[in-house]
Amino acid sequence: MTHTAAIIGGGVIGGGWAARFLLNGWDVHVFDPDPEAERKLGQVLANARRSLPGLTDVALPTEGRLQFCTTLQGAVEHADWIQESVPERLEIKHKTMAAIQQVCRPEAVIGSSTSGFKPSELQAGAARPEQIMVCHPFNPVYLLPLVEVVTTPQNGSERIDVVKTLLQGVGMYPLHLKKEIDAHVADRFLEAVWREALWLVKDGIATTEEIDDAIRYGFGIRWAQMGLFETYRVAGGEAGMKHFMAQFGPALKWPWTKLMDVPDFNDDLVDLIAGQSDDQSGAYTITELEQIRDNNLVAMMRALKTQDWGVGALLTKHEDHLRESGTEPQPVDHTAPVVTGNRVVPLDWTDYNGHMNEARYLQAFADATDQFMAIIGCDAAYIAAGGSYFTAETHIRHLDEVNAGQIIRIETTALGGGGKKLHLWHEMYVAEKMIATGEHFLLHVDLKTRKPSPASPAVDSALKEWVEAHGERPRPEGAGRAIVSSPPR
Amino acid sequence: MTHTAAIIGGGVIGGGWAARFLLNGWDVHVFDPDPEAERKLGQVLANARRSLPGLTDVALPTEGRLQFCTTLQGAVEHADWIQESVPERLEIKHKTMAAIQQVCRPEAVIGSSTSGFKPSELQAGAARPEQIMVCHPFNPVYLLPLVEVVTTPQNGSERIDVVKTLLQGVGMYPLHLKKEIDAHVADRFLEAVWREALWLVKDGIATTEEIDDAIRYGFGIRWAQMGLFETYRVAGGEAGMKHFMAQFGPALKWPWTKLMDVPDFNDDLVDLIAGQSDDQSGAYTITELEQIRDNNLVAMMRALKTQDWGVGALLTKHEDHLRESGTEPQPVDHTAPVVTGNRVVPLDWTDYNGHMNEARYLQAFADATDQFMAIIGCDAAYIAAGGSYFTAETHIRHLDEVNAGQIIRIETTALGGGGKKLHLWHEMYVAEKMIATGEHFLLHVDLKTRKPSPASPAVDSALKEWVEAHGERPRPEGAGRAIVSSPPR
Repeated sequence: MTHTAAIIGGGVIGGGWAARFLLNGWDVHVFDPDPEAERKLGQVLANARRSLPGLTDVALPTEGRLQFCTTLQGAVEHADWIQESVPERLEIKHKTMAAIQQVCRPEAVIGSSTSGFKPSELQAGAARPEQIMVCHPFNPVYLLPLVEVVTTPQNGSERIDVVKTLLQGVGMYPLHLKKEIDAHVADRFLEAVWREALWLVKDGIATTEEIDDAIRYGFGIRWAQMGLFETYRVAGGEAGMKHFMAQFGPALKWPWTKLMDVPDFNDDLVDLIAGQSDDQSGAYTITELEQIRDNNLVAMMRALKTQDWGVGALLTKHEDHLRESGTEPQPVDHTAPVVTGNRVVPLDWTDYNGHMNEARYLQAFADATDQFMAIIGCDAAYIAAGGSYFTAETHIRHLDEVNAGQIIRIETTALGGGGKKLHLWHEMYVAEKMIATGEHFLLHVDLKTRKPSPASPAVDSALKEWVEAHGERPRPEGAGRAIVSSPPR
Repeated sequence: MTHTAAIIGGGVIGGGWAARFLLNGWDVHVFDPDPEAERKLGQVLANARRSLPGLTDVALPTEGRLQFCTTLQGAVEHADWIQESVPERLEIKHKTMAAIQQVCRPEAVIGSSTSGFKPSELQAGAARPEQIMVCHPFNPVYLLPLVEVVTTPQNGSERIDVVKTLLQGVGMYPLHLKKEIDAHVADRFLEAVWREALWLVKDGIATTEEIDDAIRYGFGIRWAQMGLFETYRVAGGEAGMKHFMAQFGPALKWPWTKLMDVPDFNDDLVDLIAGQSDDQSGAYTITELEQIRDNNLVAMMRALKTQDWGVGALLTKHEDHLRESGTEPQPVDHTAPVVTGNRVVPLDWTDYNGHMNEARYLQAFADATDQFMAIIGCDAAYIAAGGSYFTAETHIRHLDEVNAGQIIRIETTALGGGGKKLHLWHEMYVAEKMIATGEHFLLHVDLKTRKPSPASPAVDSALKEWVEAHGERPRPEGAGRAIVSSPPR
């Protein structure tokens, strides 16, 4: 069943929510009286469409339907989830919540994107306080998984579980705080760092660019994968966390931050910061910077996926969910090629020519080979038990270009195999157009001796069933081909 | 000429400096009276050897010689750089500096790894204050490029320039602060965040693991690539930095941090944090966590390299430096295969089989093809002007396995070419052992029409010179081969 989300207040955050829901298959109804809302949301959505679908190695569900509504009622009345992202003033939030509750379903979730207010403040005076909770996301909402879920006892555990499940379903990570607190968790850090940064610029210690470099060439990349405490646990070395704390503890009393003082927030300070920011980043438009940011995030998140760690481990989990909740499993048909890949070309797979880099063709084919191996029983458990196939020879024909964002599908034919051998033929398609073919000869190996060895009887017989059935099909044009363009000398 | 670094005080930071210098070709002399020093430094060095050499796509210089010295004098007397990483107490730093200055060369750099002290404090009472400055690195020192260079007017601009050049030479990024300040720049942020985090745990808002998740699934990956100010510039959207500041400004006065207060640092707090940290990360040993961290950092830094951004742009710059400062350029010899690649297999190129993933063979060959294209004049400028070669067909034979950390060399023969065509043969070696071959047929294309077109006359004639000379050589065994293992049906 298709879910419906109502987005109240567009902008960068509301637009990010809209994109997150829409690209994960939800229908989305937007209400925002700003006459520019449709254009602004369109820009966020364009960024999301170029970066999110390729983030995972499994295609997302079919995009939902997007609708701009002229009334709040039209947006929320049938919604399962209502996300409020209006300006950060409590009286506006209260007015909006009251209007929503007059027309929404009582079982719908009402999430607030507030950075600072506590859920008890939002619930105060509400008709059905139990519907309202904080769901605070991070920009860009379509890529970053974190959502701070902050609740009160009014919400009840059942509703909270529903919220978590729905957020996980769209690839997010609900962090449920144990207690409510002003600014939740992440923004408390951002606020502390922001104050400190304003002082450093104001006092002429470093420019905005130097401060950014101090972060991204140092602790920023540590935090991106392990956060604060695990990083310090490692820094403590063999002696561990207690040793680290004993070392760092006394510094709490040292004058290492301006914590007792807040800089005057005046025009001089704003001009100083804005001027330095222009020097630092003014060569790029905001649109360019948004795309650069998204390229970087996709590349780093996918890099962590290869390590099955942090945000990368979340991606793998979400792919499992996508596979399970995808289209109904087809009945196994040994007489046709088997679909071993269905994915969107991600942003980090393109090169200076603007199209998918040649090495990524082989990566897609190699993933398809893994998929076929799993189908015949050579899966993670089989490999852990000591057997696998190693590729001995590969032949690729590049028939056409493919760009980031396009959906590629791989269909696989077993040309031969049995005993130690496996001979596969992959065809890569964009819709019905063939983009490339990959022919691969693999040998089964014993992972201890690293020498060829026969596959297990179960794998062998599963493979032979495919080889036999595919043998009835015409041999693919191009199989067995060699590069012959220059005559032998 | 080989430089020599003296490392005074081993441990995680001193050991990291030792590894950074050593793997970049410096000789390293270590002095540390701790009887465990050699073992501890050996562990850091082992981590560095598995992660750093493959970080770049160009091999590092030959490793320098490492020597443990029994006296301070033996370590520092011939050193160009002396790095002090002794415990963080001013009287110990002063005693160490005095002892160093009695026996070191007056022109040597004396860098201090201090996290908190100002250079004027370190210089106070020194025989030659101009030698002493703060060079504050970040753990792991062998991977993270940031060094905060903090100086006083005593140091003089000439010496500071030397320091910057030497640090850049070992792949680091010297951030020279405009003024000295307690805790420099980065640790002021770390301190502010650390205080805030201790409060959140103490007040029961979130556990250490939840706080780490709040960082690494959200703002941590934003900061890893753009830092604080550029991230906010983007968040401000079209309205820009001033708009963002106007929005965020008032929050400075809100109770969003515990900035007026410092938590009591007592046993209860230490036990609370250490216990939660055990729950969070106790399944891994510190050694395992160090290697996981390094794998993650290498993968993310290399991901940013594909985007030519942030720490990745630094890597590219360092590779240019490595190429220029590498072994003397060989005279061009058209009669022999040309070396088009010399690199270490990086940590992010291995797969679940523990060896280099098959797609990375093609990536290495594709990089070698790029290198050959540049040699015949199809370089970045040529491509920007609208011409390039696209691969049409590839044939790879995997002859042996290769693991992370091994050096691979690629030698290339031009099998044919001219007009639109380019036919290359790559051989991949580990020392003298052939690991794989790659045969590639490429077509020159007009990047506007995306259709085949003849190469420029200059590229064409440079290519033909290679084809002609290589044509005198015996045709490589395996060229023109097809996959023939299963008989045509």
